[in-house]
Amino acid sequence: MYGLIGKLKAVPGQRDALISILLDGVSGMPGCLSYIVAQDPADADAIWITEAWDSRASHEASLSLPSVQAAIAKGRPLIAGFEQRIETSPVGGHGIGTTA
Amino acid sequence: MYGLIGKLKAVPGQRDALISILLDGVSGMPGCLSYIVAQDPADADAIWITEAWDSRASHEASLSLPSVQAAIAKGRPLIAGFEQRIETSPVGGHGIGTTA
Repeated sequence: MYGLIGKLKAVPGQRDALISILLDGVSGMPGCLSYIVAQDPADADAIWITEAWDSRASHEASLSLPSVQAAIAKGRPLIAGFEQRIETSPVGGHGIGTTA
Repeated sequence: MYGLIGKLKAVPGQRDALISILLDGVSGMPGCLSYIVAQDPADADAIWITEAWDSRASHEASLSLPSVQAAIAKGRPLIAGFEQRIETSPVGGHGIGTTA
């Protein structure tokens, strides 16, 4: 499996709008086992995204999906920056969904 | 929802053993929506755990479960230290399982 843990900052005041776009864009991504979007309670503009995929290739392919391309285009103006991006190798657990 | 992102370090050479203990201990935790254990590909001793719970209270209650107590007792000697602990407020996504 392939995993990502990322922290991004929204443009001030735009976190909820950006989260809505992220959540709209992530349904039906082939190979996506988990994709959870969270607010950072300690930082009013910060968002954490934790992801698990069946492979790195599935994650990379997702970036070309029309739904994801549309979310990127819509969300980009609301992103102030990326603060962390950690790649992981998930090995198991609870809540690892079925693909797509 | 309540979330945690944590990084811990295993005693050198004990990462796989510690991961097995963690995975054994996390089935059937009431209120647990996601609990994913991952290796850090950039650090041979590091483990990332990402969690989503229906509430902070469910997470706290889990620490008293016999299965979790047993995992803590068994795993503690294999833990070298905790490097990060980030609390989050998950709002949605894919792979948020059913409780327990």
